Amino acid sequence: MPLIRLYLAPNILSSDEKKEVSIQLTDIYTSRGLPPFYVNIIFIETPPNCLFVGGEPQDKFVRICIEHIALHFPSDDRKRSYMKKLDSIIQPLFQSKGYQWEYHISETPRDLWKVQSIIPPPYQSLEERSWMTERRAIPY
Amino acid sequence: MPLIRLYLAPNILSSDEKKEVSIQLTDIYTSRGLPPFYVNIIFIETPPNCLFVGGEPQDKFVRICIEHIALHFPSDDRKRSYMKKLDSIIQPLFQSKGYQWEYHISETPRDLWKVQSIIPPPYQSLEERSWMTERRAIPY
Amino acid sequence: MPLIRLYLAPNILSSDEKKEVSIQLTDIYTSRGLPPFYVNIIFIETPPNCLFVGGEPQDKFVRICIEHIALHFPSDDRKRSYMKKLDSIIQPLFQSKGYQWEYHISETPRDLWKVQSIIPPPYQSLEERSWMTERRAIPY
Repeated sequence: MPLIRLYLAPNILSSDEKKEVSIQLTDIYTSRGLPPFYVNIIFIETPPNCLFVGGEPQDKFVRICIEHIALHFPSDDRKRSYMKKLDSIIQPLFQSKGYQWEYHISETPRDLWKVQSIIPPPYQSLEERSWMTERRAIPY
Repeated sequence: MPLIRLYLAPNILSSDEKKEVSIQLTDIYTSRGLPPFYVNIIFIETPPNCLFVGGEPQDKFVRICIEHIALHFPSDDRKRSYMKKLDSIIQPLFQSKGYQWEYHISETPRDLWKVQSIIPPPYQSLEERSWMTERRAIPY
Repeated sequence: MPLIRLYLAPNILSSDEKKEVSIQLTDIYTSRGLPPFYVNIIFIETPPNCLFVGGEPQDKFVRICIEHIALHFPSDDRKRSYMKKLDSIIQPLFQSKGYQWEYHISETPRDLWKVQSIIPPPYQSLEERSWMTERRAIPY
């Protein structure tokens, strides 16, 4: 449900760092009760001269695009607290390396979404709980 | 109008399979009367350790992102029948290979869209029909 | 704020051309008073047999995806004038090379957006002006 794409220069993050940040980002969603496999994270590495900021090629920059599908923010408070959690993961990681970053989130319709061609069960339903414990999409 | 991006590991699909699935996906839209060249499909192959599901690197997974622009769903029935057609194409393809998949669709404004810098003609207009038969965008 | 992704075959544009078109696209936004570093442009080069138009592999095609976050169009007139400016940049570039192109724009929520983990200051505020003159995100 969240689809998170990170556009960045190659070698900004090691494989271990990618895995670590993926686990941390996934934890944001599982802590709200979502099955871990809902969280899809894609690192898209851009060759030199393919990422421009303000008209200049920039290889110390990470652009993060987040799409929320299963859960939309119910309030402004939740938006703020989500972004704070996000910041607590990415800010120390990129700031220590001298990189800049920017992110935005969009919300897309839950009823236009399937996992393994199955309509995911309602949030916090019994069926969703079984997807969580089985760690995969199962017909219901 | 539909922009379909498929994120997947390299070598999951051969060039022939990519072409075949592109033709099948395109047929969904031409069967609704849209010009075939409206359908843009991009396969984005992710190197190892660049695609994570549930915090784990995953190379047997396909994430499909679909954007609809020219036509929005007029009803819930149409949403369901569209997704069924989609499932009938991708489910046999990926299931037989032991891959997992997930997709979502979003709808974006038709009036913020151009083909060859031309505002596409209204749906089912005479001008659209001539785009269809000419198989290209022509000024009108 | 605008995130502009261009999907295209490798070698369609040289590094110099990418830089030149990035500067021209950035100018559209700075002429409306936005800090230049808000403009993120990513060229995503697709290998052969990875981009299909109408079910056919196509290597003389550029698909442009634009997301607007900081500023949404206040009127239909502004939509049209924006797209005209865009056309004046990309049409001569791609037409002269015999390429085809298509673009669409979507608008995403401003309150789900951060630069350097800072909520960007309101449009045309004093703080935004200092981001512009400093050419970076500064806490305020």
